[in-house]
Amino acid sequence: MQSTIKAFVFDVYGTLFDVHSIQQVANEIFPGKGTEISQTWRQKQIEYSFLRQLMGQYKSFKQVTKDALVYSLTLHDQKVDDESVKRLIDQYLHLDLYPEVIDVLTTKGDQKLAVFSNGSRDMLEPLLDNAKVNSFFDHIISVDDIKNYKPTPASYMHALNHLGFNREEVLFMSSNGWDITGAKSFGFHTAWINRGQLPVEVLQLHPDNEWESLVPLKEMLTA
Amino acid sequence: MQSTIKAFVFDVYGTLFDVHSIQQVANEIFPGKGTEISQTWRQKQIEYSFLRQLMGQYKSFKQVTKDALVYSLTLHDQKVDDESVKRLIDQYLHLDLYPEVIDVLTTKGDQKLAVFSNGSRDMLEPLLDNAKVNSFFDHIISVDDIKNYKPTPASYMHALNHLGFNREEVLFMSSNGWDITGAKSFGFHTAWINRGQLPVEVLQLHPDNEWESLVPLKEMLTA
Repeated sequence: MQSTIKAFVFDVYGTLFDVHSIQQVANEIFPGKGTEISQTWRQKQIEYSFLRQLMGQYKSFKQVTKDALVYSLTLHDQKVDDESVKRLIDQYLHLDLYPEVIDVLTTKGDQKLAVFSNGSRDMLEPLLDNAKVNSFFDHIISVDDIKNYKPTPASYMHALNHLGFNREEVLFMSSNGWDITGAKSFGFHTAWINRGQLPVEVLQLHPDNEWESLVPLKEMLTA
Repeated sequence: MQSTIKAFVFDVYGTLFDVHSIQQVANEIFPGKGTEISQTWRQKQIEYSFLRQLMGQYKSFKQVTKDALVYSLTLHDQKVDDESVKRLIDQYLHLDLYPEVIDVLTTKGDQKLAVFSNGSRDMLEPLLDNAKVNSFFDHIISVDDIKNYKPTPASYMHALNHLGFNREEVLFMSSNGWDITGAKSFGFHTAWINRGQLPVEVLQLHPDNEWESLVPLKEMLTA
């Protein structure tokens, strides 16, 4: 496969960055509740992006992320005050990279690397800056530019148009089963980063590769 | 409100019928695992309907329901064999009505009642027949007729076209927050049957009414 791949495209949340690294701050504000707040927050963030797309009620991922946090705090009987919300939302700009990411990215030669995310630029750019990985990427592609969330075909088409290659020349990597399914349906080569040791989604759209982390990419970047 | 309402429209799964009533049979086949199998099954059933709509990969709710069951059994380390799958899928045609439903429906006068579901007719019709509630409904409306899952505007428009009223003359009732949000976004009057004592979805589309069960409808039907 690797000889035909011209662009290596990464999903961001859950793939390069661990969204659950906000648990530490959540536990500081809401002792003992960090894990459940974080789990519901992420689950609702994804659900709300799907619902807004399905309803034709687009709002940016920044708004969706804030709304999902408010739901999560309410569900878990915690006080929703501006300061706590602001502090947790700010953590979304300071998420932890998964441990192998820097090592994998530094093996990059002259290949084209990109991130492609549901996140809006006001979330993505500070996040990549704060983690000091901005310079590895030739493109930062956000669905916010066309206001069509993944996994719509329109979203992946936007990424493809941005890259300027054929769809089978793109390797798209995501830890999110629904994102890999959408990318496969569109026609990208896919590698599912199965960080949670989960079953493959039963949607008749199998990923081309299944990896436990991004480590197998090193070999493709150095080849 | 009631004087302006000309059609009373019910969601089916989770609203009239308890999808988790399959737990008993699931526990017979997979002892001690019924609850978790049922929870994941329902969650994935909803997710897969969203994903198929978003990707433009429509399959009927019958297929989606089967796929979600296979995922759930795999996630919970249970054997996926044809007989177990067939037995559980068959339970979807024999779900339990929520306890108040018959009492509420029998108060019906000359009002128009309808069900409107993501379920395909090969699921809905046997389910309503087996529960002996078919005769209460003037319309059985399935998204399968236009292959657009709720909560797309197209799905609610299909229901409206079928009913032949104005959208503000329809009271739509669902226990599913995402369904009530979609119906509200489309312009129906809405009553959220909050069976799970959950927070309102944070999507800036508040339901017009929030009820713990369908009991408050009795008063509107007898008025």
